Amino acid sequence: MSAARPPLCLEPGSKSWPEELDSIQGRPERLWFAGRHELIERRPRIAIVGSRSPTPYGEAQARRFALALSESGACIVSGLARGVDHAAHRAALDAGGATIAVLGSGVDKPWPTGPLTDEMATRGLLVSEFLPGQGPRPHHFPLRNRVISGLCVGVVVIEAAHASGSLITARWAADQGRSVWALPGRVDHPMSRGSHRLIREGAGLVESPDEIVRELFGGEGQGQSTAAGPPPGLSSEAGRIAVLLQGETLTADDICERAGLELQPVLAALVELEVADCVVRAPGGFYRLSG
Amino acid sequence: MSAARPPLCLEPGSKSWPEELDSIQGRPERLWFAGRHELIERRPRIAIVGSRSPTPYGEAQARRFALALSESGACIVSGLARGVDHAAHRAALDAGGATIAVLGSGVDKPWPTGPLTDEMATRGLLVSEFLPGQGPRPHHFPLRNRVISGLCVGVVVIEAAHASGSLITARWAADQGRSVWALPGRVDHPMSRGSHRLIREGAGLVESPDEIVRELFGGEGQGQSTAAGPPPGLSSEAGRIAVLLQGETLTADDICERAGLELQPVLAALVELEVADCVVRAPGGFYRLSG
Repeated sequence: MSAARPPLCLEPGSKSWPEELDSIQGRPERLWFAGRHELIERRPRIAIVGSRSPTPYGEAQARRFALALSESGACIVSGLARGVDHAAHRAALDAGGATIAVLGSGVDKPWPTGPLTDEMATRGLLVSEFLPGQGPRPHHFPLRNRVISGLCVGVVVIEAAHASGSLITARWAADQGRSVWALPGRVDHPMSRGSHRLIREGAGLVESPDEIVRELFGGEGQGQSTAAGPPPGLSSEAGRIAVLLQGETLTADDICERAGLELQPVLAALVELEVADCVVRAPGGFYRLSG
Repeated sequence: MSAARPPLCLEPGSKSWPEELDSIQGRPERLWFAGRHELIERRPRIAIVGSRSPTPYGEAQARRFALALSESGACIVSGLARGVDHAAHRAALDAGGATIAVLGSGVDKPWPTGPLTDEMATRGLLVSEFLPGQGPRPHHFPLRNRVISGLCVGVVVIEAAHASGSLITARWAADQGRSVWALPGRVDHPMSRGSHRLIREGAGLVESPDEIVRELFGGEGQGQSTAAGPPPGLSSEAGRIAVLLQGETLTADDICERAGLELQPVLAALVELEVADCVVRAPGGFYRLSG
């Protein structure tokens, strides 16, 4: 493996040291960098992690999220492992974006080796708290995971088995006050188990990278749920009530009176309008048009 | 269509009237029953609802949940529609279980017609608040949905488009204080959109019917997450710490001292043990073995 420049070593307090790590439990005493050192300045950083043996769905989603987040300007952080990590680094490089691999070995001994690793050492950035020359050791990986999450504003878990390294990263992230997003999947595949566990424990369910982009940059993205006019297929009662509510805030009883309808069909139509994002319920039993 | 017996009509307060409906907004003034009237006494009742055009995954999951919940003794309630409703009734009948279809038309005019409908009228139970002789009308269906949820302890949503009837049923269920469970799926299919929306809004993410059986009956089911001994594949530090914690409640510092390890590997191993469900964190920074 040929790094373009000799490894750089930074300590807390030095210029370019990632200050996000100063607040985490077990702050690294120093970090080594190989590759494009300047990438450590790129923010926001988002981690994309997941299984070493993803399904084709998981691999495609890792690429999709890394590509879209890279294109929105985020730096993609992962662990250089096979599977989801690999797909995330690869997509970020392909998008011409910034990407960082945090290693469980010295930056001159990245693992696994291969074309992606060589490219990460020249077009991306390798980061490690372990001394140059150190090989990978099993207990390094859970420690390495706290640096992945610590560097980032949040962690996206794509696919993860029930008890796996990605869940360790997510746990560190939660402890460090970082966002945790998990991608759901089919319940009949074990690779969904870990993501679903995270969602039950409070992680954000994420369907699209736009949701993360909106959260980070406050932009609009191409999300699906921007409420427009009433969708087609509403019942005639719902249509009438939507017209009645223009510029008004009314109770169900008010609506019955104005529309000359009974309470039950009015309640049914209001639920229908709520589910279609046309109507919102305000405190005190009032209804108004949304948006 | 030939019902085995003439329709039965019940009013609130009469024997066999499902009292669960007394507490809901818009209680039906009466209900008609066709088929095996005695099935209205079977409890607990669980609704399984979802798309009229499910994916093969959704249809298989509807069958799986209906079969397992039937076999555990629950009565399966749905809306007789194509797709998920159909699969749920079918599986309950095949299991020899109790199943109820709540209609948007009179019990003598069930819709859609077909072999399942004929069988539901003899081996299952058809229920409606609409007068015999009334055909289905669009505004009946959102109303009918409040009876589906109102009859049940909870509603399982299998697959649902972003704004759909199943979401209306789920909204009624939440308003009525019933449980709402939603099955996740692939983010690249629109049929997952509604279930994921429900999970974001607070519905329980459900992967297996056992989870519902445990919630209803307090039984064990065949769930996957019953913690046993430490799983294989733990780091050597984690294994040592698991031994140290037998019969003890210790802080990370205590563990460092007793194990002769530094804080970072101990923290890493503790996170590893937590994710593997071997260790739980107690208030005050203490750790103990789980279970």
